[in-house]
Amino acid sequence: MATPMRSGPPRQGRNPELLPASAPGASQEEIRRQNLGAVLRYVHVHGLTSRAELTSRLRLNRSTIGALAADLAAAGLVTEEAPTTARRAGRPSLVVSPRSGRVYAHALSIEADRLRAARVGLGGRILDLREADRPSGMAAPDAVAPLADLVRDMERAVPGDALLAGGGVAVVDTTRDADGRIRIGGADETLHAALSAEFGAGPRFVTGDLADIAALAEHVRGVAAGVNDVVYLHGDLGVSAGIISGGRLVLGHRGRSGKVGHMVVNPDGLPCGCGSRGCWETEIGEAALLRHAGREPGGPDAVADVLRAAAAGEQPAVAAVERVADWLGFGVANLVNVVNPNTVVFGGSLRELYLAGAGTVRRRLDTMVLPPCREIVHLRAAALGRDAALIGAAELAFDTLLADPLHAGAAG
Amino acid sequence: MATPMRSGPPRQGRNPELLPASAPGASQEEIRRQNLGAVLRYVHVHGLTSRAELTSRLRLNRSTIGALAADLAAAGLVTEEAPTTARRAGRPSLVVSPRSGRVYAHALSIEADRLRAARVGLGGRILDLREADRPSGMAAPDAVAPLADLVRDMERAVPGDALLAGGGVAVVDTTRDADGRIRIGGADETLHAALSAEFGAGPRFVTGDLADIAALAEHVRGVAAGVNDVVYLHGDLGVSAGIISGGRLVLGHRGRSGKVGHMVVNPDGLPCGCGSRGCWETEIGEAALLRHAGREPGGPDAVADVLRAAAAGEQPAVAAVERVADWLGFGVANLVNVVNPNTVVFGGSLRELYLAGAGTVRRRLDTMVLPPCREIVHLRAAALGRDAALIGAAELAFDTLLADPLHAGAAG
Repeated sequence: MATPMRSGPPRQGRNPELLPASAPGASQEEIRRQNLGAVLRYVHVHGLTSRAELTSRLRLNRSTIGALAADLAAAGLVTEEAPTTARRAGRPSLVVSPRSGRVYAHALSIEADRLRAARVGLGGRILDLREADRPSGMAAPDAVAPLADLVRDMERAVPGDALLAGGGVAVVDTTRDADGRIRIGGADETLHAALSAEFGAGPRFVTGDLADIAALAEHVRGVAAGVNDVVYLHGDLGVSAGIISGGRLVLGHRGRSGKVGHMVVNPDGLPCGCGSRGCWETEIGEAALLRHAGREPGGPDAVADVLRAAAAGEQPAVAAVERVADWLGFGVANLVNVVNPNTVVFGGSLRELYLAGAGTVRRRLDTMVLPPCREIVHLRAAALGRDAALIGAAELAFDTLLADPLHAGAAG
Repeated sequence: MATPMRSGPPRQGRNPELLPASAPGASQEEIRRQNLGAVLRYVHVHGLTSRAELTSRLRLNRSTIGALAADLAAAGLVTEEAPTTARRAGRPSLVVSPRSGRVYAHALSIEADRLRAARVGLGGRILDLREADRPSGMAAPDAVAPLADLVRDMERAVPGDALLAGGGVAVVDTTRDADGRIRIGGADETLHAALSAEFGAGPRFVTGDLADIAALAEHVRGVAAGVNDVVYLHGDLGVSAGIISGGRLVLGHRGRSGKVGHMVVNPDGLPCGCGSRGCWETEIGEAALLRHAGREPGGPDAVADVLRAAAAGEQPAVAAVERVADWLGFGVANLVNVVNPNTVVFGGSLRELYLAGAGTVRRRLDTMVLPPCREIVHLRAAALGRDAALIGAAELAFDTLLADPLHAGAAG
């Protein structure tokens, strides 16, 4: 995948990025590919854009942008048209838009209790969406067949000239066993085998951790758009994170970063399903909130009920929210000290918990985070909701197309 | 700074990197600059390299490599010569070497109790080195004047045709107040002002956190060479980390990532100088080891004495090392769950502590890290010792030259 080049000297006082020790050189063909990708990516992220804006933002000259946009239009990836609003003087700059209705990706999410499949158009628009239950005990690879059924169902409504760019799959790491116990470990090689078996010569699927993928979505077009240092926290059965540093996902050596639910925050705490004790999940998970509120174990509905009771001022729900929000802030403070984000985003079930206990969370940061990091960190509720996983999965899928617009994405 | 392009399609099952939403396009001039940088960087990192190897590693054709190497040689940045060993057949491929004796950087380190200045040649060779004490209570900006004296002293021995590429400064974040108390916060804007005042129109200095810079050095030419996901831990008065993910430093929003010493690991622990309680530093710092060993507060010598006593099997030194190593493993386990490194490097004073308690550290990882991350993580003692900060600071300085070999680095 091509990495657009950045120019300009490094500024004093700012560390330059590391470069790979062995970096391939650039050829003419690669440059054209890269520039086509830069134009297509820009309109994919920003929507309708004038040629003039592309010229200034991409720092290419006007005729180059014109030729690139024309090539992309000829390939059916963008449209070019005169702007609808009149300009003061001179020839109006054509506006370039992604062909969201024609160019699309399959986006799948394998969530704790739900399977979702969407067609997402270039530009990040959800064109179609189907859902099914994920029964307890269904392993991620076994979810591929019912998802493929949903995909085939959606495909019937796709226009004949549509272009399938590829597929992306967001998989949660924590699932429910048939006996209701929580099990850790979602995506693995068997998932890829299941995707190949089910889709055969169809779209190539890229898979990723749901929290990473949702973080990507919030970074590209959600509450963290334009923010380069982000910790996105996702709560469902477990708690995991998607960490973005300098505009790039911190994936880890095997893509297994962000297992923040298994940071030990309370050495004297309860046993965790992972075999350790006092993990963050044991203090901020659904089970902790219900336990402190004196409720029976339950799912999202039971949690929502506690949050409603707390909002109405009912004890012990208020105390339970305070206590869990305090531990939420505790773990966030540790993460902020480690990765120094500009923005922390609370997603999944943590969104509502954060909104219910924002003051408590912030107080923890005020005592535990070093002052220079504390002052700059923004805490935000996620903007894209459950669609984040699908929109992010589509981003993964579009990446091949955006890296090489004229030679990729012909899988459909 | 130019980012060399990578090519090839993303592989299934691997998340592509995030790209900046607004990526500038590539021009002809930029490509040549980038390719010159790629060649110079390759020999800077790998030392003497044949043109044939450059051709294959950088994926450029042979004539292009020849022209680039000739340009770099003409600029006095590399030498080209016939290989000394005979080859079986055909014309021997010229070998290209960095001109380490001619092209150099100023590398400075502002450590807790010491100031160091070096001339580091292209290729990472320390050509000259001077040191001075850093008195307690000396703020980082006040260290610039004595460092400048050391630099001027070294400059007297520099040959007339030498090329100064720039300067880098590694600054510890934790220093000792005049009254001996530990103070947090090292590099800031006042340091840049002091550098400008002292060096004027001389080399431009890039500054960074010492742990980040030492991590960079271990990544480029130390124990983590070729490893793209690294947590480097640095112990001195405090504990901080340099985190490398996907080959890039995780710097954070204001370059303030890696304050891992202030993760709270023990909510019931001792007060920390930062105002919080139970920070990792309070459990694994020098003070903790000396306290558990029943010793008076002291510095590195006192710590070394405890480690010697423990190695000789003396109680309570053995128990003190075990206890501190256990907390060391505790924090490392949390970091491994968060960022999923391939390698954790123990540097500064943590190097000896790790070597003394490696089994205990590993046992913590075996209980606290999720299995898939646990199995792959390598624990390593740092290889470059105290030179890591200087070698890394030079890497920062060379970066401008490597980004644009023919138009940068003329500061000397």
